[in-house]
Amino acid sequence: MAETIFSKIIRREIPADIVYEDESVLAFRDIAPRAPVHILVIPKAEIATTNDVSPEHETLVGHLVHVASLIAAREGIAEEGYRLVFNCNANGGQAVNHLHLHLLGGRKMSWPPG
Amino acid sequence: MAETIFSKIIRREIPADIVYEDESVLAFRDIAPRAPVHILVIPKAEIATTNDVSPEHETLVGHLVHVASLIAAREGIAEEGYRLVFNCNANGGQAVNHLHLHLLGGRKMSWPPG
Repeated sequence: MAETIFSKIIRREIPADIVYEDESVLAFRDIAPRAPVHILVIPKAEIATTNDVSPEHETLVGHLVHVASLIAAREGIAEEGYRLVFNCNANGGQAVNHLHLHLLGGRKMSWPPG
Repeated sequence: MAETIFSKIIRREIPADIVYEDESVLAFRDIAPRAPVHILVIPKAEIATTNDVSPEHETLVGHLVHVASLIAAREGIAEEGYRLVFNCNANGGQAVNHLHLHLLGGRKMSWPPG
């Protein structure tokens, strides 16, 4: 896959409001937040879309979800609740071709989800 | 966690339009679809919410995402794209307390996601 802006954020070549980091994952606040809490959780590995998630990526992708729940707890929104979203390609509204999980909360999310 | 309607679907005690099954996962069409393709992918293990996803569940949760992408391909919407959504608790709009991943596609999804 082509390198994206997220690779530059991982390498600290461009700034981001980073809220979590470990060996395999980075999380930072969305620059265009659509909820009081709006954070992106991304793998450091360059995986373009959910279509590119193969069986060997499953633990990493599940780790994104686990980390999102940890961040939700830190942000004080775990019990009231939140929404986690992966967008894939054009109909999904994917804006950057590096897998990212949106964590949105701090308000009631409506249905359908877009 | 208390047993939910999804446990009864897994045991075939109530009907559902099942589109995929393997040892650890079941997928079926949402009874109140909000997109031309609207499928739920659930673990057979009783995990209530994303807050309950611990490190030992990470491979299983990543498998939900991988299976969703396989179903998207079968449904013919992988390339045009789709959205994957986990709702957690009240603010997330979680309606059944058994972890489930919504796969929505077949139309352009708008932003924000609810």
